[in-house]
Order: sequence, then C-alpha cells, then structure tokens
Amino acid sequence: MIQAKVLKGFRDSLPWDEMSKKQVIHTLEQVYSLYGFVPIDTPALEFTEVLLGKGGGETDKQIFHFTDNGGRDVALRFDLTVPFARFVANHEHEIPFPFKRYHIAKVWRGENPQKGRYREFYQCDFDIVGVDSVHADFEILSIIHDALSALGIERFTIKVAHRALFTAYLAHLGCLEQSVEILRTVDKIHKIGTEQVKEQLANITGSKEHAQRILSYCLVDTQQGPYRVLDHLSHLVPEASEHADRLSRIFSLLEASHIADRFSIDPSITRGLDYYTGMVCETYLDDIPAIGSICSGGRYNDLASLYTKTRLPGVGASIGLDRLLAALQELNSPLATAPRSCDVLILNEDPSLFLHYTRYASVLRKKGVSCDVYLAEKKSAAQFKYAEQLHIPYAITIQAEDIEKETCTLRDLATRTNLDHITLEAAAAHIKGIDNCSP
Amino acid sequence: MIQAKVLKGFRDSLPWDEMSKKQVIHTLEQVYSLYGFVPIDTPALEFTEVLLGKGGGETDKQIFHFTDNGGRDVALRFDLTVPFARFVANHEHEIPFPFKRYHIAKVWRGENPQKGRYREFYQCDFDIVGVDSVHADFEILSIIHDALSALGIERFTIKVAHRALFTAYLAHLGCLEQSVEILRTVDKIHKIGTEQVKEQLANITGSKEHAQRILSYCLVDTQQGPYRVLDHLSHLVPEASEHADRLSRIFSLLEASHIADRFSIDPSITRGLDYYTGMVCETYLDDIPAIGSICSGGRYNDLASLYTKTRLPGVGASIGLDRLLAALQELNSPLATAPRSCDVLILNEDPSLFLHYTRYASVLRKKGVSCDVYLAEKKSAAQFKYAEQLHIPYAITIQAEDIEKETCTLRDLATRTNLDHITLEAAAAHIKGIDNCSP
Repeated sequence: MIQAKVLKGFRDSLPWDEMSKKQVIHTLEQVYSLYGFVPIDTPALEFTEVLLGKGGGETDKQIFHFTDNGGRDVALRFDLTVPFARFVANHEHEIPFPFKRYHIAKVWRGENPQKGRYREFYQCDFDIVGVDSVHADFEILSIIHDALSALGIERFTIKVAHRALFTAYLAHLGCLEQSVEILRTVDKIHKIGTEQVKEQLANITGSKEHAQRILSYCLVDTQQGPYRVLDHLSHLVPEASEHADRLSRIFSLLEASHIADRFSIDPSITRGLDYYTGMVCETYLDDIPAIGSICSGGRYNDLASLYTKTRLPGVGASIGLDRLLAALQELNSPLATAPRSCDVLILNEDPSLFLHYTRYASVLRKKGVSCDVYLAEKKSAAQFKYAEQLHIPYAITIQAEDIEKETCTLRDLATRTNLDHITLEAAAAHIKGIDNCSP
Repeated sequence: MIQAKVLKGFRDSLPWDEMSKKQVIHTLEQVYSLYGFVPIDTPALEFTEVLLGKGGGETDKQIFHFTDNGGRDVALRFDLTVPFARFVANHEHEIPFPFKRYHIAKVWRGENPQKGRYREFYQCDFDIVGVDSVHADFEILSIIHDALSALGIERFTIKVAHRALFTAYLAHLGCLEQSVEILRTVDKIHKIGTEQVKEQLANITGSKEHAQRILSYCLVDTQQGPYRVLDHLSHLVPEASEHADRLSRIFSLLEASHIADRFSIDPSITRGLDYYTGMVCETYLDDIPAIGSICSGGRYNDLASLYTKTRLPGVGASIGLDRLLAALQELNSPLATAPRSCDVLILNEDPSLFLHYTRYASVLRKKGVSCDVYLAEKKSAAQFKYAEQLHIPYAITIQAEDIEKETCTLRDLATRTNLDHITLEAAAAHIKGIDNCSP
C-alpha cells in the first residue's frame, strides 16, 4: 500500500472550500465582464528562460524548474505577469488594444511554506495594456471597488499614491540613488512601525533629517481629504506637481461614479517592486486591517520589453485569492461559510420507490431546484447526517400514498418542521421562495 | 531580447477561446450542481510514487516528473482519477458517502503532440463513490444526457454495455485468459474496421470460429431496442444474465425520466482499460460521429485500493473538454462561436466628456448591461474595429447635448442602424430586450 500524502506546501481543496472559491471567482469574473475585460490562459509550464529572463540561467530556489524529456529547461509559472508579457508579445497582432484582460489561475513557488503561504496558490490579475491615461488608472480602481462590493464587503479602504511623485521628492532631497532601498523600507512601515523605519532610513540616507522628512511625506494626515493631501504634496515637490494633478483627476472620476468615499491618498503606499512608475494602490479591510492588502497594483511603463520592441504601458492589479477567502470567512460572509451542495435531498426510505424518487428529482431539477437523491440503502440517521455534512437545507420524503398525486413531505432541516403531503410544485416554490429572500 | 515562444504541445488560450471554455465549464458545473455533486481540487504536483504506484519508479516517458529542490521525486498529474483515489483515501473520514464529486482541471502528459492532442489539456470528471447500485449507474448516465442537452446539443447517442457480461461471454467461449487483449482489440472496432478486428481476434484466440462469435456478440443489431438486445445477450450467456438484468433496470430508470431515446445497448463498447468491471458507456454526436466519444466512463470495483483498505466501488465518466469544444464549434453552437466581451462599447469621441462616459457606464453596469469604455484617443474607425474584434454588438455615442437629459445614440453594429438620442434607460432596455430573445 502506498501512503496517501500530498507534498509539503501543497493541499487538497475539500468540497466546501472549493465551492466557496468557485463562488468568489465567479463573482469576480462577473465584475470583470461588466467592464468588458476578457479572460486568457497561458500554459502552466514554460521555457525557464522565458519566465526568468536571460539572467535566470542559474538555479532560482523559488522556482520549480527541470529538464524535460526533450532536454528543454522548463519551469512552472511563478506569477501571471511574466506569462502575460510573453503572451502579449506573441499575440500583439491578434489582440485588440487597449487590451483589457483578466487571468485567474494557479502559480507555483518553491518558497518555504509558512502560515497562510503555500507553494501552489491562485492569482487573480486584471490589467489594461496599451494606453497611458487617467481613465485607465481610474478603471482599475473602479473594478477593485466593484469587486469588493459584489463580494458583499462593505467596509474597505483603497489607498492610492503616485510612485513618480515619491521618487521626485527623493530627488528633491538628493536621495535618488538610494530610492529602491528607501521604497522597500517605507513599504514595511505598517509591518515594522515608524521608529524602525526611521532608523533604517537614517542609515540608508546617512541623515536623520532626511529620514524625518521622508517619514513626514509618508505620514501626512490622510483624514483631511484627497485634494488637500495632494495640494500639500504638490507644495513639497512643486517640480512634479503633474503627478499630484493626475491623482486629483483620478479622484474626480471616482467622485463622478459616487465611489470616492472608499478611497484615500496615502503617500506611504509605495509597493516594493521596481516595476511600478505611476499610480500605485493597496486595499485594506476596515474590520481586519491586520490581514494586509487584499488587492494591490499600479501603473507600469512597459510590460513586455523583454520580448518585443513595442512599448506597452499598462495598469493593473492583483487580488490575493487565498487571503481574500480567509477574510471572507473571518467576516462570516455567506460566500465563504457552509456552502450547500444543493437545495434538497430526496431521502431513500424505500428502495422499491426509487423509480419515483428519480422522477421527482427530474421534475425539481427542471424547475431549477438542485436536488440530490440519497443513493445508498442506509438508515434515516445516516441520511440526515449526509445532508448535514453537505449543508443541504431541505429533505423530501415520498411515501407510497404520495405517488399518485405527486405529493411529498418537505422537511426544513434547520427548523425541523415539516410541510406534509404538499404538491411537488408547492415544494419547489417553497424552496425557491426561501432562497429569494436569502442574502 | 528573449524570443516569446511556448513549449511544443502547449498553447495559449486567446480571449475568444477562453470565453467559450468558461461558458462550457460553467454550463457543466450547473448540471453537476443540479444533481448535488460537489467540486474538489487536488495539487497539480504530487509525489511520483503516489501517481504511478510502486512500480512507477522507472522513467515513464508519458509523465512530466523531476526531482524538486528538497530532493523529492515529484510529477505533474496526468489524469484526475489517480489524484481522486489518493484524495478519497486521505479524507475518507471527512467526506460524506456516497461521495459525488466533480473535478474540472488541467492534466499534463509528455506524449508526442498530434492534431488535436496537447501536452496540457483539461479533464472534466464526475464520479459517485462508495455505493454499488443501479441507481448510481443511472445517475451518471442521466448527467451525461443533461450535460449535452444543457450545451444545446440535440442529436447524440449514449452507447451502453456491461463489461462483466462480455467477460462472462469470453469465459463461456474459453477465452478468458486472453480477455485483456480481446477487449483492447474490440475497442478499436470503429477505428480499424470489422475485418481487421476479426483477423486480430483469430490470432489472439487461435480460432476463426471464436473470432466470428466474439464479433457476432459485439455487432448485434442495436436497432431492435435495448430490451431485445439484452434478451439476446442473456441467451448467449445465461450464466451471467444478472448483468443483462442490471442494464435492463438502468433502462427502466432512463425511461421513467423520459430520456431513454438517447441511449442504446451496444455490446461493442468495452473501454480499453482493465479498470472497469460493470456498466461502461461512450457518447457519440450523431452529426459528427468521426470526432469520437466525447464522454466515456463506467463502473469500477474499487477506487483507492492502492492507498486504503476501505473498499470503494464507484461509477463515473469523463468529458473530453477539448474535443467537446471542437465539436461545439463544428456544430456552430452559440457557446463556441464569437463570444462577445460585453454588450456595448461607449465610444470615446470627445475626451473632454470622459467623466460623463464613466457615469453612463456606471449606470448601465448597475442595470446588468456589461459595458466597455474605449480608453484610448483614436479615430472612430479604430474604435469600431475594436468592437468588431471583441464581437461587441452595440456602440453608444454621447454628444454634449445628450448630457443634461442623460440621452445617447445607440448603434446596432450588425445592422448599422441607430436609435438617436434615446434615454439611457431605453438603451439598456433595448440591449437587454434583444438579449432576452437570443438563444
């Protein structure tokens, strides 16, 4: 016998988790579709060189890579951005521009698994490529807003900043050469706290005063509203006021869509990656801020410069699906708690009636009621336990005297109350009626 | 610059293909759900030993396997059946039985790519495990029927046979020892033709008479209806008539559900694999039989004997998604031809009005109309080409005089006719009204 085990950092998705995940993904896809975004997919396996770039020849411990039977050096994708860049370069003459795509798929990383971190996980990316405009920046922010709203999350804040504005301020201070280090340090501000960041900044810049000024830039009072914050930042870096102006124009579009109250300007948002060049954003849940940003992104200069000469500016964001699912569970969202396998279980109390169970089930399904027939010959207790495990809210029992009139007894498994010998029609209406009132 | 290329046997999924695939998968999932089936997922990567069994230590060219950074011998899953067996063994005390699960996911095989065969492809499996009953066999067949119907396929035939009945007949002839070879040969009957099968059977059994009798068993006239065919087979193998009887009981359930006319008994269906022990089935499209079976399966004795002592009989089937998508395209199914990215494109003719475009779009989306705003500043011709590439059926133009009354001009891009200066309300109703009439 072989021991049934999964690899470290990998996991099975049990039905209740998989149902939640599918519901959340379906909700996200509906939002993307409302905006005219189209889905794509790319292979899980690619040439290692394509994924890592020319410098990536040596072993990168983060990546699952190997030599295939044809002697090719191949790797499992570790994100969806690099395959997207390769995809756009491959298909630039087939796809429409501006290209609005989403991609929800698994990625793999060999990093050491920690709490909430796995070697196989989902990313949900959405990007607009081929245009550099305020409108595109706005659209990405608007989708983040609509996605969280569609998931039933009411209290959240999308924090927005401008990467080039911050860089301009660092140039203003004469710290441009240390900018990458400074950005990465500021990015940790909510993890390691102000004091430690200040100390590290002083070390990096060699000046306590610079450290203090960078911190002041980042820790502006965001409560005074976006326009006053932007005005303040413009005064700090007058030579880069066009970046503050761009954020201001984004905010007027958010206001026109009546969603501005979910957004704030927060100059401490830098995003660690070199990659970003314009607007950057992170999304926090007001009730569980400690869980971290559940959707982050920003504007970049050129997506696919590694593979094509065509310059492709873009803007996009990525939802961390595993973190989002954990958050929905913590918020007791109906999307993530106890999804049902179906609406009703037809109990198998008399196997000689099975042909009728089947007929009843078929009628219910045609009415859009999802319906399981208990297939084994077991005692009632086992059948009720089955319904409980699968969170099925109703059971139907059918007795010999029900057959001719096509009646049944409908049991509400939560309240343990029966509607006796009602018509199948009435049972379906009752089940669907309750459903219509549910959240 | 790195050449943007994908591995041999792998491919990108472009938006129109990905949209079709998602629609088909969503339709299948709805059918599975109507029957109370629940989804699961398993890791793409597993221990090679778990996937191949103890004998699988040596290199199997069909499988992508390698040594990971932790020195483990790991492999990409090559089907969904083996991971399912491992999953059930792992979670047998957490999941409900009978366990009805579906799993739609990618699998990987290193075989040489041919037309329509790829190294990365989807499988859509659904199984009922933990019960050996006529009812479970029936339910799997019923789902195949409902899935194809839900996809809008009207003309198809599900061919059913019984593996143990055939084996009993071979025992009756004294050919039991060659049964595996015989099964595999008969399985090729529709590919290589009767004459060649006859010749091969004569070689295998060492008897032209046996070859003739096996062929006669397989090539019974299926037009006479299932009960007469079963009656005939019972007479050929009276000692195994309980198997014919089981198929007969399955047919009476199909009749009670008014779907029996899509099914036939065809004793030539054997399924090549050793695995099956009871009912087996294959599904052919009447209009394109040459494409082969698009959904096949059957009953097996014990799913997870490699990993657990618990005996788990089951029945299930698998839909070949790539073949199904090709078939839907050939049948001009609306699911597979020119899916639209959204309902309407708001043209960007005057960037100074963008704030209003945004507002209009937001109103339309709230009414459930999916709506793209053209984000670049390009000539009308480019914008119409964009709509055409994405199969968007309507365009909306908004002029300065429209703003106050919230009117717009709605253009039907197929008929090239306009509804001038109608309210946004009327535009939404028109777009959705047309939609409601569409198939």
